[in-house]
Amino acid sequence: MRPLSGVFGSHPLLADAFVCHLGITLPDHPLVLPTAFGFDPSGPDDGGSLYVHGSVAARWLVASPGAQLCATVTMLDGLVVGRSAFHHSMNYRSAVILGAGRLVDDPAEKDHALELVVDHMIPGRTATLRRSTRKELAATAVVAIPMREASVKARGGGPGDEPEDVATGTWGGHIPLQLASSAPVPDNDATGEVPDDVAARARSLG
Amino acid sequence: MRPLSGVFGSHPLLADAFVCHLGITLPDHPLVLPTAFGFDPSGPDDGGSLYVHGSVAARWLVASPGAQLCATVTMLDGLVVGRSAFHHSMNYRSAVILGAGRLVDDPAEKDHALELVVDHMIPGRTATLRRSTRKELAATAVVAIPMREASVKARGGGPGDEPEDVATGTWGGHIPLQLASSAPVPDNDATGEVPDDVAARARSLG
Repeated sequence: MRPLSGVFGSHPLLADAFVCHLGITLPDHPLVLPTAFGFDPSGPDDGGSLYVHGSVAARWLVASPGAQLCATVTMLDGLVVGRSAFHHSMNYRSAVILGAGRLVDDPAEKDHALELVVDHMIPGRTATLRRSTRKELAATAVVAIPMREASVKARGGGPGDEPEDVATGTWGGHIPLQLASSAPVPDNDATGEVPDDVAARARSLG
Repeated sequence: MRPLSGVFGSHPLLADAFVCHLGITLPDHPLVLPTAFGFDPSGPDDGGSLYVHGSVAARWLVASPGAQLCATVTMLDGLVVGRSAFHHSMNYRSAVILGAGRLVDDPAEKDHALELVVDHMIPGRTATLRRSTRKELAATAVVAIPMREASVKARGGGPGDEPEDVATGTWGGHIPLQLASSAPVPDNDATGEVPDDVAARARSLG
């Protein structure tokens, strides 16, 4: 099996996506929450480690260690315009990762995981920042999910229309979609130039 | 309570988003799958109806009627660049909708729901297409989720940094993100102009 971190070659899903949707079974219902993530293909979990983080007080984080979790990462790549309602679809890449959550309590691994989450958003960012304080680390919980058990899917291109619909001469194709950025916006306290790492991230998203 | 369909005013989440992440509890684990959706604020379910569809053979669709479901819709609006790792974040709008799935078996409602799903992708699209065949309808299952019980969240703007980090003169702000489209791509069988509805959808995403 190819490592999950490398799937989809020049459009690597885990690197491209900013958000995963984390599913957990609560007593009365499943809960699906959008959250930032980072990952380490060499992490200590089977198949590498996917890391999510949040407030130590968050209900889903309290329930996650030991629980079966589902972390789904999706990039929407386009709208597929068919010649019938049935053959409308979407182009996408997705990974559905299943595994038991593990509370990351080793301080070095926790530090590393939080760096991965921030650097996943903006590559190289943590190297430019002060170290997290003990208070900040104590307020944050990190949960790891093994990346071994994953179902990866993708769809690309145009519709798979019926020959009789194609024969009518109706138009078919797709509308490509991508996540795009605008120029970085300084807050009211910001002075000076946009940092290189921030400018590079914005440029990379075009 | 404002109707869920209208939340976030000029950037209505349910109208802007193409994908929902649907969570269901299977015997061994939660499962979270990305899927297209449509919605009808006047639908027969409490608070209106969110509709998802798929193959009648899909495991999650077979398990959905009567099961507690969680449909989470998220739009990522930006990356928040803090002056510390702790204050990095993302700007987003999200709705977490909880409710029991209902199999839509009334033919008229099913037809309507499938139209909503397609027209949600490309407004006005189904009016230009032939009607679905009995075979196509028989191959497709539609599940409705009531929109009454929903948790809606949003974050916007820059970081909420610590005063001592602001005092260092470090830059802070955010990188706006949006889903953008390129020009519609015809498939190999397409002839003639891009239809108006398809061109309008691509333009609306800029």
